[in-house]
Amino acid sequence: MRKFYNAKLLTMEGEPEIINDAVVVVDGDRIAYAGPREKAGPEEKPGPDDMDCRGNLLMPGFKNAHAHSAMTLMRSYADGLPLQEWLTQKIFPLEARFKPEQISAFTKLAILEYLTSGITACFDMYLAPEDTARACEDMGFRCVQVGNVNNFSSSVQYIGELFDKLNVPGSLNSYILGCHAEYTCSVELLRSISELAHSKKAPLFLHVNETEREALECREKYGMPTLCFLDSLGFFDYGGGIYHGVHMTDEELDIMEKRGLSVVLNPGSNTKLASGMAPVSEYLKRGINCALGTDGASSNNALNMFREMYLVSGLSKLRDKDASAVPAKEVLKMATVNGSDCMGLGSSRTLSEGQQADMIMIDLQAPNMRPGNDTISDLVFSCSDSNVLMTMVAGKILYYKGEYKTCDVEKLYAEVDDICRELGM
Amino acid sequence: MRKFYNAKLLTMEGEPEIINDAVVVVDGDRIAYAGPREKAGPEEKPGPDDMDCRGNLLMPGFKNAHAHSAMTLMRSYADGLPLQEWLTQKIFPLEARFKPEQISAFTKLAILEYLTSGITACFDMYLAPEDTARACEDMGFRCVQVGNVNNFSSSVQYIGELFDKLNVPGSLNSYILGCHAEYTCSVELLRSISELAHSKKAPLFLHVNETEREALECREKYGMPTLCFLDSLGFFDYGGGIYHGVHMTDEELDIMEKRGLSVVLNPGSNTKLASGMAPVSEYLKRGINCALGTDGASSNNALNMFREMYLVSGLSKLRDKDASAVPAKEVLKMATVNGSDCMGLGSSRTLSEGQQADMIMIDLQAPNMRPGNDTISDLVFSCSDSNVLMTMVAGKILYYKGEYKTCDVEKLYAEVDDICRELGM
Repeated sequence: MRKFYNAKLLTMEGEPEIINDAVVVVDGDRIAYAGPREKAGPEEKPGPDDMDCRGNLLMPGFKNAHAHSAMTLMRSYADGLPLQEWLTQKIFPLEARFKPEQISAFTKLAILEYLTSGITACFDMYLAPEDTARACEDMGFRCVQVGNVNNFSSSVQYIGELFDKLNVPGSLNSYILGCHAEYTCSVELLRSISELAHSKKAPLFLHVNETEREALECREKYGMPTLCFLDSLGFFDYGGGIYHGVHMTDEELDIMEKRGLSVVLNPGSNTKLASGMAPVSEYLKRGINCALGTDGASSNNALNMFREMYLVSGLSKLRDKDASAVPAKEVLKMATVNGSDCMGLGSSRTLSEGQQADMIMIDLQAPNMRPGNDTISDLVFSCSDSNVLMTMVAGKILYYKGEYKTCDVEKLYAEVDDICRELGM
Repeated sequence: MRKFYNAKLLTMEGEPEIINDAVVVVDGDRIAYAGPREKAGPEEKPGPDDMDCRGNLLMPGFKNAHAHSAMTLMRSYADGLPLQEWLTQKIFPLEARFKPEQISAFTKLAILEYLTSGITACFDMYLAPEDTARACEDMGFRCVQVGNVNNFSSSVQYIGELFDKLNVPGSLNSYILGCHAEYTCSVELLRSISELAHSKKAPLFLHVNETEREALECREKYGMPTLCFLDSLGFFDYGGGIYHGVHMTDEELDIMEKRGLSVVLNPGSNTKLASGMAPVSEYLKRGINCALGTDGASSNNALNMFREMYLVSGLSKLRDKDASAVPAKEVLKMATVNGSDCMGLGSSRTLSEGQQADMIMIDLQAPNMRPGNDTISDLVFSCSDSNVLMTMVAGKILYYKGEYKTCDVEKLYAEVDDICRELGM
């Protein structure tokens, strides 16, 4: 048992609200108590492991609900090209030479960055899923992977195998069925993915309508909007969701409502690649579950949930010409509980008794969080990764004041530099 | 003499380019040398004051070219309202009760935040300019203030006096003539401001076309776009510039070109208040000097140059539907030399011999700056305030690894909290 005392607390149960004098007790990998000090039972002298939070904020870790972690390899590589050119001429050729053990190293590099910005879990789509799972296990990081099958890599059989293999209860790793995107899969392939989802009675996730071109081309090819086409194949009979969802028709939003689908918004990536501004207010109005993702480091170029939080609200204000659009409380839900909900992380949603201890501590003593007129608003509109003092996953502190507890950073950097040289970058 | 060795260097002379093995020598408040190690003269054993930069980056500090520093008081206060309502119903009434000594405290709070994000000078428009100047002097921070005269506060006579009083060569403070905005000044007042500028042969700055409404109302009132109207009063006969410049006509851009005016872009504030996206590519195409500002903390809500750098490029990519719009090199110029140019800071533009030692050190060992495929791009699209290791103004280190050298932070926070209570916030 480890007690965190003298804390402010945001449990993220219900509407976000700060509890001013709070205590959190962690027992193994779980929360034993999180709430006001006066309800925490008799006060005892702090033990050697207990932590005085000095008035700083404890809250659930952020869920990065769309990531291609190992793409840290390509951060700032071939920057400034339009999406299709950048993908086909720069990224795909490099990825063709990217080996599993190398992917593991760059996944770890991404995890370091996640930890500094208070991210405790990611929803990762990439090559070499078993190596990725081992890298996360090594780092003590929580990872939900999603199938990335397309015409060129992986297979329906393989994602089915991974679904059975990686979904071990109590593990840091889990797996959700999915494919890359409509535009990288043949209709036959899409049909067999849908069949797999039916046989497993499982949800499906994929990239949908990230760019205008993608949305247009699907309509030309199949005579209907992307989500309508996918739904006609029974893709979402067991739920699931979409990544990006920037260019949406009303019909597609109707399907999302009807099927209870989630959308994972990636405002940083959509900005950097000039893909557009997603209709976030429209999603919220319809009660569609909105989560937040960083996408890969090569299209953002940071893996920083504070950027995404600022942008998902800010871009909506610009899009809607309304300064009250997408308020801070909604954004905090997106970055935490809504992410958990679409990632199947029901046991690491909130800071509540019995939940997984996936918790972060935010520095409220830094000037950007002062004078503290509204800490909820400060978290979304002023806070940055510089304010993250601690990141804990499953009861284990992985990051504390600039130190990484489960990684030999110098060794990893040396490895990463060697790989870059080897790949001729 | 103090030597910073084992550094990467971005001097910002000409096109931004990283020098890989560099040395910077600071002598008093000036740069004695900044360049490659091999040209730094005979190598001596490092002295006790010298600093091993461990491969991190030295570059000129950022210039925050539009600020209302003491508005840190209102950070996250009455968040989410449209600009006019927020100003008239929330901000103005609070400001009416805001006393000079209180303004000094909140200016210092802003400076702490500037230092953490590598800002070494600000272009400040606010109440109580003499108290603001003293606060900056106390903190060792460089500040260019600008006249904020309008129908309700300050006067043409007073800004004329400040112009003479605060422009003392060698001081950290300086002063530029200006007024709040066309929409808060009568035509008579604007005429006498213009006359003052003529008598001093000095440039003028003011807010222009921040919102669509402001631009429309000026056209209704005076029958011409804001800048055309101001130019017809001889406002810019000695140059100057505008803050915001979001909603611009071609005629107004023509005037900017003709008069050599600067625009200070505030993408964070314009996003948060839903004011719109400035035509940045158009400014650049015309060769108009573009600088960057954070605006006040109540409309952003952070004073963080990394946010502004990301946004000024990102929003342009979205506006232009072009991922190559406003590239990283242009953005770095905006945040440094272009800011200096519009603020009259010719002696703290670049890291070069003889220039003021206004210098920052950026951590390139943090995961968000790895693997380092393109450090220029990383600086704009991945870097954050968490990467700022050191901020130096006029040869004096004001901030180093989380510590503020010229401010008793706890005492300031106590003062700030007392003021908030006093003002009933």
